[in-house]
Order: sequence, then C-alpha cells, then structure tokens
Amino acid sequence: MIVVMSPTASREQIDNVEKKLSELGFKTHPIFGEVKTVIGAIGDKRQFNPQVITSMPGVENLVPIMKPYKLAGRELKQVPTIIQVGEARIGSDEITVMAGPCAIENEQSFIDTAIKVKEAGAKILRGGAFKPRTSPYAFQGLEEDGLKIMAAAREATGLKLVTEVVDTRDVELVASYTDILQIGARNMQNFRLLQEVGMYNKPVLLKRGLSATIEEWLMAAEYIIAGGNPNVILCERGIRTFETATRNTVDMSAIPVVKEQSHLPIIVDPSHATGTWKYVSALAKGAVATGADGLIIEVHPDPAAALCDGPQSLKPLKFSQLMKELDTIAKAVGRILL
Amino acid sequence: MIVVMSPTASREQIDNVEKKLSELGFKTHPIFGEVKTVIGAIGDKRQFNPQVITSMPGVENLVPIMKPYKLAGRELKQVPTIIQVGEARIGSDEITVMAGPCAIENEQSFIDTAIKVKEAGAKILRGGAFKPRTSPYAFQGLEEDGLKIMAAAREATGLKLVTEVVDTRDVELVASYTDILQIGARNMQNFRLLQEVGMYNKPVLLKRGLSATIEEWLMAAEYIIAGGNPNVILCERGIRTFETATRNTVDMSAIPVVKEQSHLPIIVDPSHATGTWKYVSALAKGAVATGADGLIIEVHPDPAAALCDGPQSLKPLKFSQLMKELDTIAKAVGRILL
Amino acid sequence: MIVVMSPTASREQIDNVEKKLSELGFKTHPIFGEVKTVIGAIGDKRQFNPQVITSMPGVENLVPIMKPYKLAGRELKQVPTIIQVGEARIGSDEITVMAGPCAIENEQSFIDTAIKVKEAGAKILRGGAFKPRTSPYAFQGLEEDGLKIMAAAREATGLKLVTEVVDTRDVELVASYTDILQIGARNMQNFRLLQEVGMYNKPVLLKRGLSATIEEWLMAAEYIIAGGNPNVILCERGIRTFETATRNTVDMSAIPVVKEQSHLPIIVDPSHATGTWKYVSALAKGAVATGADGLIIEVHPDPAAALCDGPQSLKPLKFSQLMKELDTIAKAVGRILL
Amino acid sequence: MIVVMSPTASREQIDNVEKKLSELGFKTHPIFGEVKTVIGAIGDKRQFNPQVITSMPGVENLVPIMKPYKLAGRELKQVPTIIQVGEARIGSDEITVMAGPCAIENEQSFIDTAIKVKEAGAKILRGGAFKPRTSPYAFQGLEEDGLKIMAAAREATGLKLVTEVVDTRDVELVASYTDILQIGARNMQNFRLLQEVGMYNKPVLLKRGLSATIEEWLMAAEYIIAGGNPNVILCERGIRTFETATRNTVDMSAIPVVKEQSHLPIIVDPSHATGTWKYVSALAKGAVATGADGLIIEVHPDPAAALCDGPQSLKPLKFSQLMKELDTIAKAVGRILL
Repeated sequence: MIVVMSPTASREQIDNVEKKLSELGFKTHPIFGEVKTVIGAIGDKRQFNPQVITSMPGVENLVPIMKPYKLAGRELKQVPTIIQVGEARIGSDEITVMAGPCAIENEQSFIDTAIKVKEAGAKILRGGAFKPRTSPYAFQGLEEDGLKIMAAAREATGLKLVTEVVDTRDVELVASYTDILQIGARNMQNFRLLQEVGMYNKPVLLKRGLSATIEEWLMAAEYIIAGGNPNVILCERGIRTFETATRNTVDMSAIPVVKEQSHLPIIVDPSHATGTWKYVSALAKGAVATGADGLIIEVHPDPAAALCDGPQSLKPLKFSQLMKELDTIAKAVGRILL
Repeated sequence: MIVVMSPTASREQIDNVEKKLSELGFKTHPIFGEVKTVIGAIGDKRQFNPQVITSMPGVENLVPIMKPYKLAGRELKQVPTIIQVGEARIGSDEITVMAGPCAIENEQSFIDTAIKVKEAGAKILRGGAFKPRTSPYAFQGLEEDGLKIMAAAREATGLKLVTEVVDTRDVELVASYTDILQIGARNMQNFRLLQEVGMYNKPVLLKRGLSATIEEWLMAAEYIIAGGNPNVILCERGIRTFETATRNTVDMSAIPVVKEQSHLPIIVDPSHATGTWKYVSALAKGAVATGADGLIIEVHPDPAAALCDGPQSLKPLKFSQLMKELDTIAKAVGRILL
Repeated sequence: MIVVMSPTASREQIDNVEKKLSELGFKTHPIFGEVKTVIGAIGDKRQFNPQVITSMPGVENLVPIMKPYKLAGRELKQVPTIIQVGEARIGSDEITVMAGPCAIENEQSFIDTAIKVKEAGAKILRGGAFKPRTSPYAFQGLEEDGLKIMAAAREATGLKLVTEVVDTRDVELVASYTDILQIGARNMQNFRLLQEVGMYNKPVLLKRGLSATIEEWLMAAEYIIAGGNPNVILCERGIRTFETATRNTVDMSAIPVVKEQSHLPIIVDPSHATGTWKYVSALAKGAVATGADGLIIEVHPDPAAALCDGPQSLKPLKFSQLMKELDTIAKAVGRILL
Repeated sequence: MIVVMSPTASREQIDNVEKKLSELGFKTHPIFGEVKTVIGAIGDKRQFNPQVITSMPGVENLVPIMKPYKLAGRELKQVPTIIQVGEARIGSDEITVMAGPCAIENEQSFIDTAIKVKEAGAKILRGGAFKPRTSPYAFQGLEEDGLKIMAAAREATGLKLVTEVVDTRDVELVASYTDILQIGARNMQNFRLLQEVGMYNKPVLLKRGLSATIEEWLMAAEYIIAGGNPNVILCERGIRTFETATRNTVDMSAIPVVKEQSHLPIIVDPSHATGTWKYVSALAKGAVATGADGLIIEVHPDPAAALCDGPQSLKPLKFSQLMKELDTIAKAVGRILL
C-alpha cells in the first residue's frame, strides 16, 4: 500500500508514520515529492487495520495496491473453478441454465413446470420456498412445504435444485433439501448468513447486492470460501441506478471484470435484472455472448396467476424457443448449451 | 390504483381487466383516452398481488396511488411518535444525541468515553459488540463480552444503550442488555431480522440501506410495526452514489420527506455518512437545522488506536465543542439540545 | 394524465382543479376513492405546463400516462427508421460498425488506421477533431486540420465519416466535412446544439448522457427531429453508477427498451463504456447479441502513443479478429455484419 | 503519481516504464513488493498524457497523488476567494441570498417580485431569459426581451443580476446585461462555454452537473479560471441518484469537501435540488448551518401561474419568513445574513 502524506505534513510526522509501519511489520519506502511525500509499505495487509495509519497526524490517505480478497481472486488461483452439480459443470465450457418459477405455489404446477424446463434443456430447477418480500403483507413462501415440493420435482425429473435461504436458523433445513444454496441480493452483506453457508459443503449461488461493487461482491464470496466452502457461483442480477425503465440495470461489464479478477463462475439473472419478461430474451442472449457461464431465468406456466414476480416470467413455450436461440449464440462463442 | 392499458389493447382485453378487478373486490372506473385507456380501481391493495393484473394481455403498467405502507405513514396516524428512552424523548422538541465508539474494545476505555460523552450532553451511549465487517479478516466485535461492558458503562453513567444486532439468533441476547436495538444499513432488508425485532418491545434504530429508497425504508419500518413493535427510530446514514469524495452521500432531503410521509422520528449519522471526522461537525449542524430529531456520532478517545472506523471518530474534546455549537443551532430552530 | 389529489383536499379544491383542466381543453373524469380522489384528464399535453395544476391547492401530484416524446416514439411511427450513410444501412438487418482512433493526430497514421478498419469490415470511420476534455490542459484536438485529414481518409478509403461537434458555432464547418454529426454524452442536453444540428440534413449520432434516463435521451432526439432532421442514431455509451471497476456502466437493457419505445436505430460504444480495451470485445459481442444495430469502437495502431483514450483502444489486428467473431454472433441472431 | 505494475510484469517491462518516465521528465522511485512492483514518479503531471504509461506492457494502473486542478485548489491558494458583486461579498462571513423567479414572464410581475425579495433581504436577483428545457415544446424563455426586463428591475431596485447563458454565441449579449453569468448543470461540461465565459471579467455561477463528481466540478472551474476569469462561485443543486422522492439529491457533504479542497465560495440551490417548495426551507436552513456561503432560491408571486418550475417556488411572504429564520441560523454559526 501507499501512504500519502498531506502537503503540510512535518518531517516528524513522516518519521512517525514510517516508524509505526515498521512496528506493524511493513518494509517502508518513502518518496519525497515537491509538494507531498508518499510512503510505500510492503507486507501482509489482511490483519492490518488501516485507520491505525489514516488517523495519524499528517496522513492524507492510504492507497491499497493489492486486492482485499485472496481466496476469491486470481492472484493465488489462476485456474477457473468448475462446480459440478448433477450433470451441470458450472464454469466449464458448458452454459448452465437454471429455470423455474419465482415462488413455489403447489406441487402439480411446480412439477409440470419442472418437466417443461427440463425438456427445454435447463439443468437446474429454481424455486422459492422462503421469499424476501419488500412488503410484510405479501406472500412470504411455503417454507418447508415448498422445499418438499422441490424435492418431489427433483425426484420426478432428475433436475438439481437451487433455492434461497434467508435466515441463519434455516440453513440446515434448506441444505437438507436443496443442491445449491442461494443467497439473495438483499442478503449479500448479511455476513452471518455468509459464514453459516460457508460451513456447509453445498455450492452457493451468491447474488450481487443492489448497490454492491464488484470488489464487495468478491469479498462476500471470500467470507464463504474463508469459512471452508470453495464452491461459490456469482450471479449478476442488476444494480440500482437512476434509470427506471427497467427494475434494475444489469451490469454486463461485470462479466469480463469478474473473469479477470476471479476464478469463480458467473451467471446472469435477466429476469430480476429487468423485471419485465419482454426484455429477458434479449439480455439472456447478450449475457451468453458477453461470456457468462450460465443464466437463471424465471419460467411460470401462467404468469398472470403467479403469486410473485409474474411480470418477469417467461411461459414454458417462450423459454423453450429462447433455449434454442441461446444454443446458437453459445456455439458462436465456442461454448455448448444444449 | 390506476391500470394503464396499452395503445393496442382491444376492447375485450379492457373488459377482461375490469372484470378481474371486480372479482378482486375493486370498484372500477375506466377512462377512454384518444390513444390509451386507463382504469381507476378503488379498494384495499394490501393483500393484492399486482401481477395478477400486470400480466394480463393489453396491460401496459399499473400506477399505485396510495402509499404501500400504512402503519409507518401519516395517512392513518397524523401525530408524531415520541419514543421515551430513559430521559430522552426521541421525536419531541428535544434533539437527542447518541454517541460513543464504533466498536467496544475494553471496559476501561469504554467507560471513560461514556463518562465524557455524558458530560458533553449525550443521552444515549452507542457501541458495537457485533460488527458487520466487509472483510472476513477484520475485527468482528467482542460479542457478549462487549454487551457486558456496555451494561457496566450504563451502570456507571446512567446513559441508555444502543447497539447493533446482526443475526436473528442473537436478538434475545442483545435485547436482554441494550435499551435500543439497532438494525444496520446492510440488514435493512433482512426481513427475518425485522420480523424478529418486531416481536420485542425495545425501540429499534433502523438505519437506511445504502441503496434503499425512502419508500423501501418506511416499508422496512412497516415490517417491525406490523410485528407489534411501534417504536421505530429512522436513521439516515448516507446513500451510495457515484461521488467518492465522501464514503456515502448523506441525503439531507430525507429529513423533510420523512417528516411529511411518516410520524416516526428521524435522526442522522454524520460519521458513517461521510467516513471522515473532518466533515462530521458541519453535517451534524446541517442535520439539526434541517429538522432531524437527533444524531448518532462516533466518539473515540484515541481514533488512531480504534479497532474500527477510527477515521470518522471525533475525540471527546471536539465532540464536547460540537455539542455546544449544536445547542445554539437547536435553539435557532426552536428546539432544545443541552 | 392523472391528477392525484391529497387526502385532505376539499371538495372545492377538487372542483377548482376540474374547472382549470376544462379551461385548458382537457376532458376530466374524477374518481372518488376512500382516501384520495384522482382526476383523469384527456387531451394534448405537449403545450401544457404541468405546474399550472401541480401548484393548485390540494393537488398531491400528477401522473403522466402518455410519453412526453412524439416524433421519436413508436406511438406515431411504428416502422423502424433506417438511415443510409454510404453503403451502411443503419437500423436495417445489417450490423454497422464504426471504428477509428479517439483523436486525429496526423494524416499518415489516420489514413493507415482507416485502411485497416476498412479491411476489417467497418463501414464508417470515426475520429475526433474537436475533443471535449475534462482538463483544460489536455489535448483539445486538431480542429479544422483534423477535419481535413478525415476528408483525406474518406478520399483514400471510401469510408464515410463520423465526428463530434461541440459548439453551435462549429456546426456548419463540421457538417461541411463529415457524413454523420456526433453529439457527445456531455452535450446530450446542450439544447441549443441539438436545435442547431436539427437544422442540417446530416444524420446525427446522439450519445446518451452520463446520467440521462432513456426518456430524457429520447427527448433529446425529439429536439433534433422537431427541428426538421429525422435521422437520429442513438448511441449507448455507459451511464454513471457507483461501480468503479469500469469507467462507466454500459446499460445493455437500453437496447430492448429503446427498440420497444422508439423507431430509431441504437448502437453501442463499448470503448467509452468500459474505458479499458480488455473488456471491449466481450461487450461488443454482448451488444450485438442483445440486439444493437451497430457498434462504435476505438482502434489505434499504437495505443501507448495515442494523445487521447489510448487505454480503451484496440490495435487493428485485435479489431480484425473481433469483427470475425462479431460476424458469427450477428448470424446467430439473424443479422449480417461482414 | 504511482505506477502499479501487474503481478506478472517482467523486469524488462518495469525497466521500460522507468525509462519512459525519465524521458518524460519524471524522477522515478521503484518499490519492489512480494507480488507487485510500484514506481513512484515525481514531476509536473499537467501536460502529461497518462495513457502513454497505462498502455505500456505490464502496467496495471496509475494512481494520481496530486489533484488534477491547480488554480481552483487550496494547494496553491490557501486564502478563500471573496467575490464582490454590488453590496454582496460572496465567500466572506456574510451569507448571500440570490432570489427570484425561474423564468422571466413580464416586466410588471418581475419588478414586483424583485422589490419583494429585496425587502426580504436578498442581494442578488435571479431570473431566466434563456431556459434549457427538457422538452422542445416547453417555454424557452424571452431571450433578449427577458434581459431588458432584468435590467429594468435592477434599475428599479438596485439589486444585482444573475442569469443563465446557454450558448457560446450569446455570452457577449448576456454579459452586457447581467452582473453574474450562470452556467447551468446541463452545461457544466460544455467546455467551449466554460472557455467563453473565462474570457469575460464577470463572476460566474457554476452549477454542479447532475452526475459530476466534486473533482470534475472543480476541473470545470479550472477551465474558467485558466481562461483568465478567477471569479467562480460554485453552486450545489442536487445530484442524480436512485431516490425519486425528491427531484435530485442535494449533496450537503459537498460543502465541507469544497471548503477543504478549494478556495472558491459555494452556495446551494435548494429549489432545483428538491423540486418541491415544501422542502426548500428545511434544506436552506440546513445548507447555512453546514457552512454554505449563500443560497439561490426561487420566488414567484403566483407559482400556479408560473411558466417554469412553479412547484419549487416560494411565495414572497414565505420567502420573507424564511429569511428571518436563516438569519438566526447564520448567527448561530457566526455569520451575518440580514
């Protein structure tokens, strides 16, 4: 890291900072400019508390040179992580599609949808049993009954399952049913929940927070990996901006940035990103061409009757057509989908 | 609410929407424009699932007319809520100041700080025992030992306590020590945690999420009140924007907006909003003049040695001077501080 | 539009609003809810000044139902606009690629680059003669000498030209050299400049402002079209968000939204959107798969020596490879590139 | 500045960067870390083009240490700039209030308003003759006729004038009438316009762009000062964020940040920042307490009949009451208003 001293810092203040850095185990390299002095400091910053330095008299600010994450980053692990879930190899040259309704409503309808998304080529079945809803008056999910329905659909189709967990107290229960644990956008910095899922050996689908930087997102992944669970799948689902034409703004640039900074796979959720089924196909195709490792798409047999997020759900037929188009795009970028 | 039909909607589609609205218990009032038809719908929208309508053929969108919150809003309760915590009457004409260090580090230092902030005029003592940290490698708080130190400081000074709870599993423990339960910005939409604190009769300090709209913030308050706990104190602590000169952008306009929309008290946290002690005094004064009901300010006897957020902490002497200046501002807007 | 009255509005206030709306030529349809009254108003809103109503006692707010733009929108013109520039048919099933260096530096280098981008398949040559630079000390462009070099490159290659105009006083000069007039992101709401280019019959490439909503962007296009120039090409070049890993956040969702709302063609500038050449190829491919009508890409033979925006420029060889990949993607979505 | 080399940079690449920096006149100081090497470079960066370095093989990025602005910054000029306009001394211990209607509509009404804002204690009269409007169909201002009305109001009251200029071609005309030239938010990076007003000796009121960082804003001021006009008054008028409860989000933190970074005076526009007269008083008081040097407030005798921005205008009586409250706040922070 680089410590930048203020233009008015005295020689004594500069010396004090160097001395403190040495005590903390850093090797120091001061550079005296015409207006400001900066001090290069070499050493392990992980256990270091930056304000020990930034609070010292004469210090203007501190510029980190190394990334704050280690286990989630490319610096220590260059080879991409591939996560096997049933037949799916997430992060490989295959594009993995996860699909299903937002919330689980009843067994028959859920299994019917599962059969259809499987026929269309999805490898993972999504569904919400515990729903984080903005309004306390909205449908909150079927909870364990929903998990049982998911398990029945797995039984019926062979599809693997992904579902969200929203409370540390539920992780054990949800993990006993699902194949992938999902952490939702609103819980991306619920650090206790991250620690809890870090103690299981189930893959974790980690959605990006609405206002999380890519660095904070990778730090959330670091929490899970540091807890002992290396199988983190990142999911871009749109960030919050000033634009209101779509529910969120999908940050497609996050795909090449994550690929450069991290070895973890990244998928895109065009349904939550746009909030409107009309835009889902265009962005699903865009995501695959940009380099995403997969997609998670909402599919519902009767969006008008859905208890949650109907407007952004595709009907099974539309989804099936989209899968064929995605397959063509996947081939055009040298990957496999169907 | 108003249902806006698409310019290409057929008469039959319009009729179907009206019929569905009637079935759902709404009274309907269609208005036929030259290009578009809109349908006014009168009734209770709380249990209503909007996509039942937005997914119907021919529907362009749905414009809500009523606010989604009821219990947190002014429409049903016009008189401001005043929350008594020890001597403090939060939401009254008194300005309540909460102060103390970010994290609790050791008993002696914490009690010393408590004594000093009390002498300066603070009514509530803040301190963190459970810390939500961006990095898994950073100091995570003393947990129950920290709560015990807080209780000892209350014993020694008579100050009431506010501290954060970050996990549903800890609410009972934290509530058994503290006088006010704090929900941090990153947990503002951790709905399970909101439901849990809604079941206690302790006041809740609800920080605004980094990218939460004022409406979503009031919906988070609604969760707590709907659970049975009406004593919610809102806390503006800066939102995330493109500006990087300060850690967050304090949204001072939120004060008059909340005062207009809600009966709940609102305080401001200039320390977390700016991230830099140099700007804390200016914004603390601005917040009181704008109409905030109080402030929560970080004070640390030795910021350079703080284990957390030192750069944004005031030293006790500086805090004491600020309190005198705030008192003058409070008087200038017809309120009482010291 | 819908006028929403406040819950405390008196019957007299409601009557006054209705009366005023009638005087303004609107047909009114009041709907009396249990808490609030709303008034539907049918008529031409273009010459109407909303605050005549929003300032009236008892009015809470006003909800527009029709889009504010007419000429740029789909409501009046359903068929997509195709703009012919030389061989390029922008907005047709062909993908048009515009390429070249950020700034024009000298004739030889510019013509060499022009030859190479033409060989790779670009149809339009870009180059900056008037540069809007954040710093007054940075290179501001060769001005008319740059335009002459561009004309020489057109002569040498047959490529058509696009270049930015930054001042109303220069429009005539720039229009006398270029084939497409570019309005930069920072001038998207320089309304005088929009009016000025609206008086020429050259196509206009209208970049989206850094914090412009899609609606404001289409309103900027409306200025140009209302002035008499219907040939507007929209260009998404990234919006400003909190994310700093890329220079801007490319809003890929803008492509399907614009396609739905407007008949105008839309292209994407992945070079300015990301600010880094490493991410340009991924996003260029994503843009074509999402449905963009074209791309504008920075190409420079020696990015390290470029006087402007070198870090985001591709070398000609890399650009040539990208064009082949883009051609495969274009085919996969039923379009033509090479 | 600090050049950060990539972890994979070879010794030869590091040497090449050092060599290039030396050629460019910098003194270099390499620091070899365990993973990365950084190179400190000392010298004048103003004429330097960063990509000469960032495009070199092995370079990861470049961290500037000095601020990009010189003339607008505190580093070279520590004493605050005070700008005298008539009786007003902007930037001194006096709080200067500028007031008047958004647009000038007719002489009688404008002069009446002028008399009233003068009686209330305003020192500068605002009014718009050239209006930048989002819609081409909205009222665009009376142009020179409006300037003549402003001059008549100055004659009648002795108040000095501030009005916006939107086109380089109009600067001479507007400057011949007004006492302060206003650059609007949408033109903050219209660099040609900045250069043009830099050639006049009239003070310039420079509004912050909707998505401009404080650094970019100070760079815009630098353009004007570098052109020869040192009299720049900064005006915070709200930035664009995701929050829609107010038209923009006023960035109150910008006040202490600007005071620290720059010697220029800063005022706040609570009318445009909020878009609603109901919130103007609260934020005007907050701005003065936070340390602003003045305010610019919209006042209109009949907001419902205003041709522009009526909803955010105060009536003269309300404005007069606000001025008395502001005076009390000003005294509380050791300043003078009335």
